[in-house]
Amino acid sequence: MDEQKAVVLLSGGLDSTTVVAIARERGFAVYALSFDYGQNHRQELDSAARVAKVLGAARHAVVKVDLRSFGGSALTTDQPIPKHRSAAEIGLGIPVTYVPARNTVFLSLALAWAETLDAVDIFLGVNALDYSGYPDCRPEFIAAFERVANLGTKMGAEGGRRIRLHAPLISMTKKEIVQTGLSLGVDYSMTTTCYDPAPTGEACGGCDACLLRLKGFAEAGVRDPAVYRQ
Amino acid sequence: MDEQKAVVLLSGGLDSTTVVAIARERGFAVYALSFDYGQNHRQELDSAARVAKVLGAARHAVVKVDLRSFGGSALTTDQPIPKHRSAAEIGLGIPVTYVPARNTVFLSLALAWAETLDAVDIFLGVNALDYSGYPDCRPEFIAAFERVANLGTKMGAEGGRRIRLHAPLISMTKKEIVQTGLSLGVDYSMTTTCYDPAPTGEACGGCDACLLRLKGFAEAGVRDPAVYRQ
Repeated sequence: MDEQKAVVLLSGGLDSTTVVAIARERGFAVYALSFDYGQNHRQELDSAARVAKVLGAARHAVVKVDLRSFGGSALTTDQPIPKHRSAAEIGLGIPVTYVPARNTVFLSLALAWAETLDAVDIFLGVNALDYSGYPDCRPEFIAAFERVANLGTKMGAEGGRRIRLHAPLISMTKKEIVQTGLSLGVDYSMTTTCYDPAPTGEACGGCDACLLRLKGFAEAGVRDPAVYRQ
Repeated sequence: MDEQKAVVLLSGGLDSTTVVAIARERGFAVYALSFDYGQNHRQELDSAARVAKVLGAARHAVVKVDLRSFGGSALTTDQPIPKHRSAAEIGLGIPVTYVPARNTVFLSLALAWAETLDAVDIFLGVNALDYSGYPDCRPEFIAAFERVANLGTKMGAEGGRRIRLHAPLISMTKKEIVQTGLSLGVDYSMTTTCYDPAPTGEACGGCDACLLRLKGFAEAGVRDPAVYRQ
């Protein structure tokens, strides 16, 4: 029997890589989707391509979408990335690295591809526990988007098929995410998490994303295989 | 006092042009948003630029988003456009000109721009009466997307501001749309509605979009200023 197709949002970081491994383990043929959205560094796209290949994705698409023309985030402009914030600071409010409506944009494009593929399953790696305070990572946002997906597509509205958004990490800690990935054989050295890596690829070790990742590995009692410049 | 900003989805056709005129009449500074999404003909982008200029938009942005890489619609592939279908056929089911999840994708990008502009008003020209059977033109879809917008953005989730989707044409007939636009002084000769115009710009007169437009002008008792090749 053919594997059921699923579109998986893949940034090339720790979370989305773990999600690809979970979708594969659940028996899906993975259609990995990454975005070239004007982000300041490109290592994450290289990592995404590597992850898609190593974890056996059926296809990896990189879609260009020009979010940079809107401005408004430190990830797409030259605003400095905040470093070495405490866990309390990270949990407090929405940081400058927030890209306006990013998950809404990414999910809508995942939905467009899913509909073209006739796939009803979409996976994404948001998590609401050890997260960066982005509003579009919360369970109620995911539920609301699922409703949009079912009302706004041919297969949902007319085909009577139910589109499902899967957010398997949503209630996991970073520690549990790391443990889950390792139990599925994921080699995290191929992932890029840092918001501000060196041109040679080393992670900064100080941005919110690095701090959350390091905390996850530390709590899991495992060495992070990523290379840090400090 | 400064005018309040609104993002208006503008394809350059009859409906979205009328919506720009309505938003202007309601006192909004219009930030018109068009998409270069791999559509087969480019006249609509020229029309959109003309409409934005003539109707006094504060800005007109054309965002590239590569829907063509997904395939799946006659508007972005070389599938033939159906011609001279009856009103009954047009009302029946979702046609091949449907672009997968198009309004979801366009609204999500409008939302991203709105958030960057700190604007809470988004206008779009969907209508549920004389429409082409697209699922993402229905009122329940619009309401569901509004919920996503308010949950998935900084200004909605944290700023306590309510994002509003305006679909002023949603319960108008094409006749009423034409009458509304004419009463606001819209010159419809600058709009492009046809799915399949000649390279020289003449409309085909036979696709669903042309048929609906011609019906609207006929019922309003006004000559359509568009040039038809038949």
